[in-house]
Amino acid sequence: MLDAISFNEAGLIPAIAQDAQSGQVLMVAWMNAEALTETVATKRAVYFSRSRQKIWRKGEESGHVQKVHDIRLDCDGDVLLLSVEQIGGIACHTGRKDCFYRQLDDAGQWQTTSSVVKDPAQIYGKGHE
Amino acid sequence: MLDAISFNEAGLIPAIAQDAQSGQVLMVAWMNAEALTETVATKRAVYFSRSRQKIWRKGEESGHVQKVHDIRLDCDGDVLLLSVEQIGGIACHTGRKDCFYRQLDDAGQWQTTSSVVKDPAQIYGKGHE
Repeated sequence: MLDAISFNEAGLIPAIAQDAQSGQVLMVAWMNAEALTETVATKRAVYFSRSRQKIWRKGEESGHVQKVHDIRLDCDGDVLLLSVEQIGGIACHTGRKDCFYRQLDDAGQWQTTSSVVKDPAQIYGKGHE
Repeated sequence: MLDAISFNEAGLIPAIAQDAQSGQVLMVAWMNAEALTETVATKRAVYFSRSRQKIWRKGEESGHVQKVHDIRLDCDGDVLLLSVEQIGGIACHTGRKDCFYRQLDDAGQWQTTSSVVKDPAQIYGKGHE
């Protein structure tokens, strides 16, 4: 499995999490070999946090785990696509359904298109994911 | 527009191209500021080719341009999501509909799930995108 993957110079590959039902792109995070191996074994999305430089079991703190239905690899072997079931319906650390809530308008401004479903302070005991 | 974006150390940001109708994730490529600016101005996807280190007007050679309906930015400002109409129905340089045609099976092997729609040799006059 791992030998088909082109990890970048930091040993990471971006992983897109897409909602298995709606097809909505929820978020993009990064995986190293360990994170991907654990994801495959547990069928729960496990990423590598670049800011914290460690394994990040998505939903470990918030309960908003991602059940992984399917994993795909692109032609160059440098992007993963995960089909997931987002438990709790909130993928974004801002408390939104997904991370792509800013949309470019005709004036070249980013407009926020979706609102916070749940206050992050309520989601996380202490600190953010 | 550009000031909200966190380009990486190479001045690039990954851009996911998603089919506007089906929601299928077609491909991921990279943009620099110039590519994004031209994409916004022309409403055609323009990327930055990392291998060729230059602006890559998707479909310039093959005719398989991507009409851009919508551009979104994620919470961290480091991933773009484009909603596109893929002219010719082929996004991948291998001649497939999309780039994510390898799926991980239960034995940990990548299985090819979709076939080539059109021979790349027929798509490109000389060389690949």
